[in-house]
Amino acid sequence: MENLQEARDFFEKGYLEYRPNISIDCAIFGYHNGELKVLLVKNKLIRKWYLPGGFIKKTESLDDAASRITAERTGLEKLFLKQVKAFGDVGRNSTLDVFDEEAFEQIIGFRIDESSWLAGETVTIGFYAITDIVNASPKADFFSEACRWFPVDALPELGFDHEEIVTEALSRMRIDLYHFPIGKNLLQPKFTLKEIKTLYEVLSGKTLNPTNFPNKLIALGLLTKLDEKRSIGGHRSPTYYKFNEDTYEKALEDGLVLV
Amino acid sequence: MENLQEARDFFEKGYLEYRPNISIDCAIFGYHNGELKVLLVKNKLIRKWYLPGGFIKKTESLDDAASRITAERTGLEKLFLKQVKAFGDVGRNSTLDVFDEEAFEQIIGFRIDESSWLAGETVTIGFYAITDIVNASPKADFFSEACRWFPVDALPELGFDHEEIVTEALSRMRIDLYHFPIGKNLLQPKFTLKEIKTLYEVLSGKTLNPTNFPNKLIALGLLTKLDEKRSIGGHRSPTYYKFNEDTYEKALEDGLVLV
Repeated sequence: MENLQEARDFFEKGYLEYRPNISIDCAIFGYHNGELKVLLVKNKLIRKWYLPGGFIKKTESLDDAASRITAERTGLEKLFLKQVKAFGDVGRNSTLDVFDEEAFEQIIGFRIDESSWLAGETVTIGFYAITDIVNASPKADFFSEACRWFPVDALPELGFDHEEIVTEALSRMRIDLYHFPIGKNLLQPKFTLKEIKTLYEVLSGKTLNPTNFPNKLIALGLLTKLDEKRSIGGHRSPTYYKFNEDTYEKALEDGLVLV
Repeated sequence: MENLQEARDFFEKGYLEYRPNISIDCAIFGYHNGELKVLLVKNKLIRKWYLPGGFIKKTESLDDAASRITAERTGLEKLFLKQVKAFGDVGRNSTLDVFDEEAFEQIIGFRIDESSWLAGETVTIGFYAITDIVNASPKADFFSEACRWFPVDALPELGFDHEEIVTEALSRMRIDLYHFPIGKNLLQPKFTLKEIKTLYEVLSGKTLNPTNFPNKLIALGLLTKLDEKRSIGGHRSPTYYKFNEDTYEKALEDGLVLV
């Protein structure tokens, strides 16, 4: 929702356009220079930080909806985006207790009551995405007073069950690291083995062996050695690598086992 | 739904008890003697085979609902059960076109129309479970004319998007094999290394190295060697192993990396 009219339409008759009772929330991870962050929005009416989220249009698949929602908040159309799982614990919407009804009525012009299409509990479908922070342009929507990056290990208190969603998104992403290639839009087109090792270390939260780890990626055929070194002077200048496009795309499709 | 009254109540006023627009479908895998099967039910009104499924009570978590649904069909209370993901492609309910409305009206006593709480499209949340086939007692419900096991590589045509759910459940289970221990209720309490290798081969669909693979499980501390051999005569009698309960439970909780 980008303006007042859209917000009014959504609360009043959103059930015509959107699926009721089901939402999407996205843990958008941002990587840059060895740091991992997650994008949060601060809601004006509930006064807490949340993952960017929204509802699913009746004409959209779940993936389409997640893609639209992440694009709205980051300006990026084609993020690496994967479903985590659905979250539906009883009472997961309970922070709506602290929803500021008066502020809402002042802004929108009517109240939400029991008969609203938004009144019942929702199941939310969690997704995660990974982007290079420098590529993204975080943008608050009409009901958010802020939208910005937080280090994954220093998050503020989150509303609803969004802390659980972040935790599950991190676990899922860390399992996926063993089964899908990653890094294409997170590293420069040419990178050193040290740079890709750092990326994997930051994403996985683990220390990796400086020789074995890159050798595994090379053995899988994911990396191509370039006939070019980073010029830092002397004989220790590191060699550049790039992703092998064909192997990378095939592995994204078929999966791999990084062992 | 086990009888006519329950079925009538469900269709007429199920919205009081269940969450609308969201269902659960379970790929229940059955393993026995080196064979992998999946449990299917044949619907009386749509005349196709389906995964066992149902709706989520407003008082249940998603896991609770999946647990109830699998228990109803198998008689087993504590299956190894994991969420796969949510499925919500536009048109996924389209085989309802072949829903036999007359047969339904004859059985139930009224028609379902546009105003029914069941009229809109649903998102379904897929789960998978694994059990030893001999422990389960498949049971059809009121709207099913059959409930039985099919080999995973010889399934009949499935309704809705249930073929996609089986495929995704298999992929998810095969990734989980690398990250969670498995086998506790699928093997006898004492088993040989050959038996656990066969289990993993059947579940993963891959051929495994007869020495390296068991060694990995041993290195992870999952197996305890017993001072007892299967008596098949001669010096080649295989040694029995059992799971190390503590390591197994901890790995279920924390995850592992089987590399």
